[in-house]
Amino acid sequence: MIQKATTINQALDSAVPIRDPVKIYEAMRYSLIAGGKRVRPVLCLAACELVGGQESKALPAACAVEMIHTMSLIQDDLPCMDNDDLRRGKPTNHKVFGEDIAVLAGDALLAYAFEHVAVSTVGVSHGRIVRAIGELAKSIGAEGLVAGQVVDICSEGLTDVGLDRLEFIHVHKTAALLEAAVVLGAILGGGCDEDVEKLRKFAWYIGLLFQVVDDILDVTKSSKELGKTAGKDLVADKVTYPKLIGIEKSREFAEKLRSDSLELLQGFDPEKAAPLVALANYIAHRQN
Amino acid sequence: MIQKATTINQALDSAVPIRDPVKIYEAMRYSLIAGGKRVRPVLCLAACELVGGQESKALPAACAVEMIHTMSLIQDDLPCMDNDDLRRGKPTNHKVFGEDIAVLAGDALLAYAFEHVAVSTVGVSHGRIVRAIGELAKSIGAEGLVAGQVVDICSEGLTDVGLDRLEFIHVHKTAALLEAAVVLGAILGGGCDEDVEKLRKFAWYIGLLFQVVDDILDVTKSSKELGKTAGKDLVADKVTYPKLIGIEKSREFAEKLRSDSLELLQGFDPEKAAPLVALANYIAHRQN
Repeated sequence: MIQKATTINQALDSAVPIRDPVKIYEAMRYSLIAGGKRVRPVLCLAACELVGGQESKALPAACAVEMIHTMSLIQDDLPCMDNDDLRRGKPTNHKVFGEDIAVLAGDALLAYAFEHVAVSTVGVSHGRIVRAIGELAKSIGAEGLVAGQVVDICSEGLTDVGLDRLEFIHVHKTAALLEAAVVLGAILGGGCDEDVEKLRKFAWYIGLLFQVVDDILDVTKSSKELGKTAGKDLVADKVTYPKLIGIEKSREFAEKLRSDSLELLQGFDPEKAAPLVALANYIAHRQN
Repeated sequence: MIQKATTINQALDSAVPIRDPVKIYEAMRYSLIAGGKRVRPVLCLAACELVGGQESKALPAACAVEMIHTMSLIQDDLPCMDNDDLRRGKPTNHKVFGEDIAVLAGDALLAYAFEHVAVSTVGVSHGRIVRAIGELAKSIGAEGLVAGQVVDICSEGLTDVGLDRLEFIHVHKTAALLEAAVVLGAILGGGCDEDVEKLRKFAWYIGLLFQVVDDILDVTKSSKELGKTAGKDLVADKVTYPKLIGIEKSREFAEKLRSDSLELLQGFDPEKAAPLVALANYIAHRQN
């Protein structure tokens, strides 16, 4: 996993070099090269290898997924969204570059994600590339990330948000892009439709798991441990799993999601599935 | 041209129906179905037909280009950008839906543009679709629209902005997406590389022409005639062609761009080139 993350970091670094106009590339790189766990791109590469593809076939897509994730973080932090000053222990993008440049850096990362998959993917049929681009786009828009954000925004301050709505928010805000990561890896790696759909379901479980764990960490950890403002869900009066079902039940639910996700990997070669198993465990047990 | 605009309007209307979550689709449709001249999508269809393709092959791409144009308008109007309250005579998107939803509507339109080309284009080889998506993405990011915006923002208030820099801004802010429109039409219509490159150059001329005319209209027309705030370039202390070389020289320059663009169409069948000729003339002589 660490080796895959290193591969990703190198690929991201060379995918977005400093060019003219310097300011926008600096703003893009500030957030893109800021570290982070690279969970999504590692998932993408691992899914590609699981179905028998070489890592290199999914490398541009893996970078694309991280570019989109980065864009969503830059936007989340904007004054008109969560208005956060700190991200991964550093000042947020708009704090450093200004709100206008931060918005444009997000656009550029989003657009470049598609360009990168279209232009830099090699050794894969054009048919699979087109399919991958369709999946990637769907994970962002009004059926994906954006849908989750909108319902989240519309739910703030509401008193009657139930589990269904909370799940909708989490699945769209988080699972959609993890799903894209895994599905793109499987498509570009040459996976059959059955494998792609099995991995889609796997991603759904670990995506929801990711968010349930995030909710738990937000109430149990300090800002310093998280590298971002802790307790902000409480302050923003946001609905979370701990709030709806308590910490203990949230932990049990997370454990169930973890084991359900691992069950889906049982039909695959255990050696090739090992990185995905490790990732599911990592997501379940991470401390920040 | 009017018939093509009607085709586009119908296609846009059915491409983005109202679904759940309703609010985001309403916000997307508010700006997308707001009218406008549909110059970019009409150019896309006309280029497709010019190289011998059926209109239907480029219809999803034509819609995509208009979605991206709409996204750029929503963003331009944001408080952190031009902070405009009025667009095409109506309150701007963020005035109606709030800044957070406006930003997300922009994201959704951008992502959906790519999804639409990838999923809905029929009768075209996957290779050409991938190439078209690469061109579309490039026209938006740090080598296209965004580059123009960034240099524009960094130039406000500067006293030494010359013609080169002004041309860079205009070519990236406006010509890049017009170029994508024409080039996508030509690629998806089955055009050879030589035709694609000739049409790219044509788009470059009319893109710059479009902006020079915009600059002239901003100083010569009232807000009512334009359907948006007039004189805002002067108020924002922005560099424009009239400011740098005067109104008369700006008009002469526009006329030269118009005739240079038409020269590039001379090798094509005059009947098939007629819509593009009409568009170049329309862009040159429009009054709002």
